[in-house]
Amino acid sequence: MTINYPIKKTANKTIQTAKRGMNLEADLNLTNEYYLSTNVAVVHKKPTPIKVVNVSYPSRQAAEITKAFYTTPSTTDYNGIYQGYYIDFEAKETSNKTSFPLQNIHSHQVEHLLKVRAHGGIGFVIIAFTSLQTIFVLMIDALQPFYQRHISGGRKSISLEELRDVADVVDYGLAPRLDYLAVIDRWIAKNAATVGSGSTTPKRR
Amino acid sequence: MTINYPIKKTANKTIQTAKRGMNLEADLNLTNEYYLSTNVAVVHKKPTPIKVVNVSYPSRQAAEITKAFYTTPSTTDYNGIYQGYYIDFEAKETSNKTSFPLQNIHSHQVEHLLKVRAHGGIGFVIIAFTSLQTIFVLMIDALQPFYQRHISGGRKSISLEELRDVADVVDYGLAPRLDYLAVIDRWIAKNAATVGSGSTTPKRR
Repeated sequence: MTINYPIKKTANKTIQTAKRGMNLEADLNLTNEYYLSTNVAVVHKKPTPIKVVNVSYPSRQAAEITKAFYTTPSTTDYNGIYQGYYIDFEAKETSNKTSFPLQNIHSHQVEHLLKVRAHGGIGFVIIAFTSLQTIFVLMIDALQPFYQRHISGGRKSISLEELRDVADVVDYGLAPRLDYLAVIDRWIAKNAATVGSGSTTPKRR
Repeated sequence: MTINYPIKKTANKTIQTAKRGMNLEADLNLTNEYYLSTNVAVVHKKPTPIKVVNVSYPSRQAAEITKAFYTTPSTTDYNGIYQGYYIDFEAKETSNKTSFPLQNIHSHQVEHLLKVRAHGGIGFVIIAFTSLQTIFVLMIDALQPFYQRHISGGRKSISLEELRDVADVVDYGLAPRLDYLAVIDRWIAKNAATVGSGSTTPKRR
């Protein structure tokens, strides 16, 4: 499936606002580099999925892709390991000031994060309100009821008030830039029994 | 860094041999789909990293990439979660009949797999000898001494005899096609103390 990939919307208000004040992807890359270099966690952004149609070979040493399209990601943007736990998350920006529109997250990404949870992993979404300069970590367990409400025909977004109730704010710092693992630390402390290698019953294969 | 990505070598003997008898990537995709659909594990192949140079917009709905290059992957091809454990691996084919050339694996991939191990994850390489129709799972712990020998100026490959000593053969089946998790099950049983969420000391942050 060919999609209109959001990064190209240069005239879009979201991106322009982001450039002024914050860039979630750049901040997360800096954060993950910091975690990696200080041996705290190994988290990487996955490459953007691209369907290659034509490749030309101007020389034997260099292949040049001459026709390709952005495709829908089948999972989330980031995953890795932290203190022996599998962690997996999606990062989303919105210029909205009062709510987070759920159409920003693909249904298969929600399903993927729910599977991660069922297998003893840590799944969440990082939501940046660019106009408010506020960033939340929303665990998949907390996201699920709102997503269910949305696909059942209810409200298509999570209000800022709802997010303040069920999500945690990530502080903006120097190093790490966005210490989202501080939120994960608190979550692990409360959910230790349902996460990690001891939490799942080995399935007969 | 622009590289000559191996998938383009259509005249290469490795690929031709692979097409005749086996295709490791296709077999692993089938295997991972089986693991996912039977709720055994959540493992996905990462998209191939591509650096986009030019994008054209023939219409507002479809962006077409008109110039791009394959780039060096910064990590491995596959990762995911199995029974609460983080797993991470690279898959390599060789048409060689007597040894596995270590130049097939990038040094930063070895370093990445060693970091995964240090953080309580399960890291390995799946090696397919296409001419021999034999597939091995080589754990990163077992690979490391051979890689060290290589970068210290010693032998540039792991001989088949050495692999038979330190790696496990993956049986070729119908469903799953390549049950590499059977090898991982045996490895976990022997290495339980060094893997998973209980194996690492939380690092002060």
